[in-house]
Amino acid sequence: MSRIDGRTPQQLRPVTIERGWTKHAEGSVLVSFGDTKVLCNASVTEGVPRWRKGSGEGWVTAEYAMLPRATNTRGDRESVKGRIGGRTHEISRLIGRSLRAVIDYKALGENTIVLDCDVLQADGGTRTAAITGAYVALADAITWAQTTKKLIKPSRKPLTGTVAAVSVGIVDGTPLLDLPYEEDVRAETDMNVVCTGDGRFVEVQGTAEAAPFDRDELNALLDLAAAGCAELAELQRKALGTVLER
Amino acid sequence: MSRIDGRTPQQLRPVTIERGWTKHAEGSVLVSFGDTKVLCNASVTEGVPRWRKGSGEGWVTAEYAMLPRATNTRGDRESVKGRIGGRTHEISRLIGRSLRAVIDYKALGENTIVLDCDVLQADGGTRTAAITGAYVALADAITWAQTTKKLIKPSRKPLTGTVAAVSVGIVDGTPLLDLPYEEDVRAETDMNVVCTGDGRFVEVQGTAEAAPFDRDELNALLDLAAAGCAELAELQRKALGTVLER
Amino acid sequence: MSRIDGRTPQQLRPVTIERGWTKHAEGSVLVSFGDTKVLCNASVTEGVPRWRKGSGEGWVTAEYAMLPRATNTRGDRESVKGRIGGRTHEISRLIGRSLRAVIDYKALGENTIVLDCDVLQADGGTRTAAITGAYVALADAITWAQTTKKLIKPSRKPLTGTVAAVSVGIVDGTPLLDLPYEEDVRAETDMNVVCTGDGRFVEVQGTAEAAPFDRDELNALLDLAAAGCAELAELQRKALGTVLER
Amino acid sequence: MSRIDGRTPQQLRPVTIERGWTKHAEGSVLVSFGDTKVLCNASVTEGVPRWRKGSGEGWVTAEYAMLPRATNTRGDRESVKGRIGGRTHEISRLIGRSLRAVIDYKALGENTIVLDCDVLQADGGTRTAAITGAYVALADAITWAQTTKKLIKPSRKPLTGTVAAVSVGIVDGTPLLDLPYEEDVRAETDMNVVCTGDGRFVEVQGTAEAAPFDRDELNALLDLAAAGCAELAELQRKALGTVLER
Amino acid sequence: MSRIDGRTPQQLRPVTIERGWTKHAEGSVLVSFGDTKVLCNASVTEGVPRWRKGSGEGWVTAEYAMLPRATNTRGDRESVKGRIGGRTHEISRLIGRSLRAVIDYKALGENTIVLDCDVLQADGGTRTAAITGAYVALADAITWAQTTKKLIKPSRKPLTGTVAAVSVGIVDGTPLLDLPYEEDVRAETDMNVVCTGDGRFVEVQGTAEAAPFDRDELNALLDLAAAGCAELAELQRKALGTVLER
Amino acid sequence: MSRIDGRTPQQLRPVTIERGWTKHAEGSVLVSFGDTKVLCNASVTEGVPRWRKGSGEGWVTAEYAMLPRATNTRGDRESVKGRIGGRTHEISRLIGRSLRAVIDYKALGENTIVLDCDVLQADGGTRTAAITGAYVALADAITWAQTTKKLIKPSRKPLTGTVAAVSVGIVDGTPLLDLPYEEDVRAETDMNVVCTGDGRFVEVQGTAEAAPFDRDELNALLDLAAAGCAELAELQRKALGTVLER
Repeated sequence: MSRIDGRTPQQLRPVTIERGWTKHAEGSVLVSFGDTKVLCNASVTEGVPRWRKGSGEGWVTAEYAMLPRATNTRGDRESVKGRIGGRTHEISRLIGRSLRAVIDYKALGENTIVLDCDVLQADGGTRTAAITGAYVALADAITWAQTTKKLIKPSRKPLTGTVAAVSVGIVDGTPLLDLPYEEDVRAETDMNVVCTGDGRFVEVQGTAEAAPFDRDELNALLDLAAAGCAELAELQRKALGTVLER
Repeated sequence: MSRIDGRTPQQLRPVTIERGWTKHAEGSVLVSFGDTKVLCNASVTEGVPRWRKGSGEGWVTAEYAMLPRATNTRGDRESVKGRIGGRTHEISRLIGRSLRAVIDYKALGENTIVLDCDVLQADGGTRTAAITGAYVALADAITWAQTTKKLIKPSRKPLTGTVAAVSVGIVDGTPLLDLPYEEDVRAETDMNVVCTGDGRFVEVQGTAEAAPFDRDELNALLDLAAAGCAELAELQRKALGTVLER
Repeated sequence: MSRIDGRTPQQLRPVTIERGWTKHAEGSVLVSFGDTKVLCNASVTEGVPRWRKGSGEGWVTAEYAMLPRATNTRGDRESVKGRIGGRTHEISRLIGRSLRAVIDYKALGENTIVLDCDVLQADGGTRTAAITGAYVALADAITWAQTTKKLIKPSRKPLTGTVAAVSVGIVDGTPLLDLPYEEDVRAETDMNVVCTGDGRFVEVQGTAEAAPFDRDELNALLDLAAAGCAELAELQRKALGTVLER
Repeated sequence: MSRIDGRTPQQLRPVTIERGWTKHAEGSVLVSFGDTKVLCNASVTEGVPRWRKGSGEGWVTAEYAMLPRATNTRGDRESVKGRIGGRTHEISRLIGRSLRAVIDYKALGENTIVLDCDVLQADGGTRTAAITGAYVALADAITWAQTTKKLIKPSRKPLTGTVAAVSVGIVDGTPLLDLPYEEDVRAETDMNVVCTGDGRFVEVQGTAEAAPFDRDELNALLDLAAAGCAELAELQRKALGTVLER
Repeated sequence: MSRIDGRTPQQLRPVTIERGWTKHAEGSVLVSFGDTKVLCNASVTEGVPRWRKGSGEGWVTAEYAMLPRATNTRGDRESVKGRIGGRTHEISRLIGRSLRAVIDYKALGENTIVLDCDVLQADGGTRTAAITGAYVALADAITWAQTTKKLIKPSRKPLTGTVAAVSVGIVDGTPLLDLPYEEDVRAETDMNVVCTGDGRFVEVQGTAEAAPFDRDELNALLDLAAAGCAELAELQRKALGTVLER
Repeated sequence: MSRIDGRTPQQLRPVTIERGWTKHAEGSVLVSFGDTKVLCNASVTEGVPRWRKGSGEGWVTAEYAMLPRATNTRGDRESVKGRIGGRTHEISRLIGRSLRAVIDYKALGENTIVLDCDVLQADGGTRTAAITGAYVALADAITWAQTTKKLIKPSRKPLTGTVAAVSVGIVDGTPLLDLPYEEDVRAETDMNVVCTGDGRFVEVQGTAEAAPFDRDELNALLDLAAAGCAELAELQRKALGTVLER
């Protein structure tokens, strides 16, 4: 079976991870999974939210949003509507949880890092691209906090591992990796999987869109996702391999 | 290993499903999973949201909320805060999707059913209790729409199956079924699973709270959850077995 | 004249006051006036709002709300609308004022008690049932604060009396006590009266719905209400007579 | 006993009712009760809210607000806070109900009149001054709708009577009429009474501020209020006696 | 060419500046430019917003609003809509900036003055009338803070100059000063100019409504505005010439 | 005098205008004025807002926003705060008015074009860059509507001219063109000027930040701005010179 863009079922879209994309943020990554492009900016501030003060532990959180015309038809701005929608809330929380899974709060110290993931162009898989890119921005921000700003001792290791995410789904009975929008809307089952670089799971969110799925289908999707995440972890390592001047 | 309430790892808490709990709603169920109590009211209205008009298809949606003192310490009302939190949004959407997985929109016709799931008392697993109870309220509401109000022909089958949900988690290395609050906060991994009555999956949402989980742990949790959902499906069938006078 | 439910004009509906209805709140009462059912939860916290700090005085406040399907047709959630309606505001303020009328702030000390009155099922008189039930929850919460939590010395008397409320109205020219919804909508005049246990007035709120009322009608309604409140005070005393294990 | 401004207990403050105070509104009245000044503007529009369309009946509603510095210390704007407070809601609803008590909806036809009551300067009794002034603005607006705009036939009588309001209260044991702010804050009991021009009651809202009140006190307050309203009704008649050029 | 109200192109409407218009505010001015009437209340409070604490410098800010029926057709209240519109924001900011242009923050000390400019009746030029009146209220408030409340030493000069504003526009090719609503809606170009008493510019805001304007037209408008502002500065000086008893 | 980036006072920063930057929008331009980068997406929809229906005329509007970390320190999201700030409102309105100055509504027909201007990176002059880029996106969107979608006849000319904008200001007494952030915060006077391609003014917004300015300074700023806009108009023409495949 051939996919709409010619890929095999096990193949990721072309993935790029550009560091230092904007000049102000302590970590700034433009990640693209095919035509999905997400700008991930990491902001470091000394101190933590009030409920965490005096704990000696840091905090990492995330906010996800889409530009109004990131999608095929224009969506109203949530700032204009005066409220954040359920989907936005859900994805922001997912990104935050995923990144915190590889954070050692004690090593981070009482510092806060906010990850802003703004989708500039959407073509399916925006949340998984956001997690994958945000991890790299987070790593850069921590390096900055250790070397430039001296907020964290260089000997500490606030990151306990790496984290990446990918979507998988069943389209016309075939399990596929990394679905673009056109496949996504046709998927019977849709799953987002977040893995650490050592192959364990951080989040598994599978949803039956058109028809409930059985254990075999679930297993096939998990296999695909685990392989995809491993590939993304490798791309993250490569992207972080070069020194970033700031 | 013995659990805090003396159950085995594979055992559900005492579950009760009381139909006709309030008098106004077309379906009204008080469901309890141990000390977790959720009131699930189904409201039927003729017609559908604007974006669905003329399609000949119906709609099912859900809203989840907690009373301020359902929990151990009082939470501020979302109506007073003027906005709905991310967790509330997320759970409302999950309940809606879960129920829609067993709905035949065509058979429902252009009718809307809203499920209000209000947690009167919380002790872990509120979203899974809500889904399990809401299904029964939905079934009653559909019967009402077919027999009392004649909105849907009795020959149609708007429900394509049954749906129930349960939480599972790993506490101190042991996979456990149906976690109360005290176990939930100690869980390394937490998963909510929604199944149809014939044993397929509708939603699988696993989250690493303290440590990423591997494939074996995931499999153990899925086994536990599938068995728990099967038991709940049986309890739903029993609860719906008696005729409800209204 | 015979009323729709067979009562005499001077007769209350069956009233029940169940204490300890939920397990988390310091006072938890399910009160019912016929088919009107209100859950009244009292939450005690040490400390007072900022504007009262250092005064040595406590604070008591209330929030009233209806579940969406407490009524015959579903009402939109105020949390979803993003704002609280005028009626909700008005009733929350009335309940708070009524309870504060029997509170000695000095004896309460710098502690705050919030009464959450959530209508589970509505059939007229929800605000008067809420006041009547909330008083009992408040009394339980104060006992808890004195005996279990030791926030208030047992020798102090934060409650200076008891308080209960009832609705009265004129239907087809006849003054009636404790109107259910069906009578309420037909009433020419509608009055809510809050009395202390010793027969004095805390609030008198009379409204001409269909036609202005004269002094004689007003007097007849006040007589009815005073007698009704006295009966409710007796029921409150009985409900509080038994020791509540918590 | 002598009051702070030298009045007898039964005496109103100087009351002025200026019609035609602004040029745009169909009825525009600046009413003052002593130093309390409220601008009451009536706006007439053809048509009614959607829920009333096709009924052949009109609608009258009111909105009350205070300028930020109408009071001794500046209050935050409700527009800036993004929400309307409970007190504002409550008073707006009271004004609307009071005016509707003298409206014949059928005679009004499918027209809507909105009364905006904006407090320019506050010194106690703003809601009662607002009702008293708004009635006059409403009368002018109806005349305009009948004569200038021809929305209502001149033979119809949309007003079935007149309506005025006054506050009464018990200060140091003495019942007093029309309390300025300084007396109001010291009152043990506070009551707002709305009467028709023929001496019947539209609203009676009595609140025990410091101590519950007994039936005798209630009667004394009602006597005072009824006499005060009769005097205000006379002043309204005088104010409306002269033709208003517009 | 003759204007609708008989003025010459260079002529202001009749301008009045009434000080001490309400009794509570530290400065209270009713300013009128023809039928445009704006109530400008200045409120003084000790202390400054948090971001300015410890700086030894004061703050001056403004809020502008319109009563719903200040205009020919009723506008919805921003408090009811739950949000402030762009126009309101824009004008509030303009007034604040204009007044701050003549404030010496150091001389003011850590005190805050808020100017509330509420349009009671609108007929064009509300923002320029507001600035012109607010300056006078500000001057009175500063005098009060120096003499009555002793917040500022009498030797200090928090005001470095005076400020006034006027609108100009091109109607049918002719530059006109101080446009009423009827001219304003027909203007091809519309400009608001804020000047100090010594003839320098604080704000110049020109907008092409119907057609872009060239440099000559711009110059003609600036000439008109500068002359108008000079005249207003003279009226402000006269208004402030008499001692205000408070 | 030498500027911080070595430019002469009369020199623009390097300006780039990239068309077709995202794939979904009908016009999509990334404009940069030095380090200021704004993504301008134009969205075309058939039909107009309700208040314009049946007029035969179109509508053009704009929304401006900043990504949270477009600036040196992170700003809270307006969607999270639940309200749009005054500055955002003000700039959105300015962009809309500027573009409408070159639109022939009749030629546009009943179509709406929304310009979303999202600042990806800010370094002063974001509103002027947004106007300059949005014009190009608007031109592309109109071409698309004429040629691809056939909403507008190719013979019509909805654009009556071109429009561009630039900021000018006085820093240390010297008038400068196109200020980056570092100069902007030091400017005594700050002006934004919007011109048509034929050299006329659409908007002139001058503000005295530190000191009022006189007529000579104003003239010097206008000269600089007019020359800068002419240069930008030339760059716009060049950018639009090449055919854009879509």
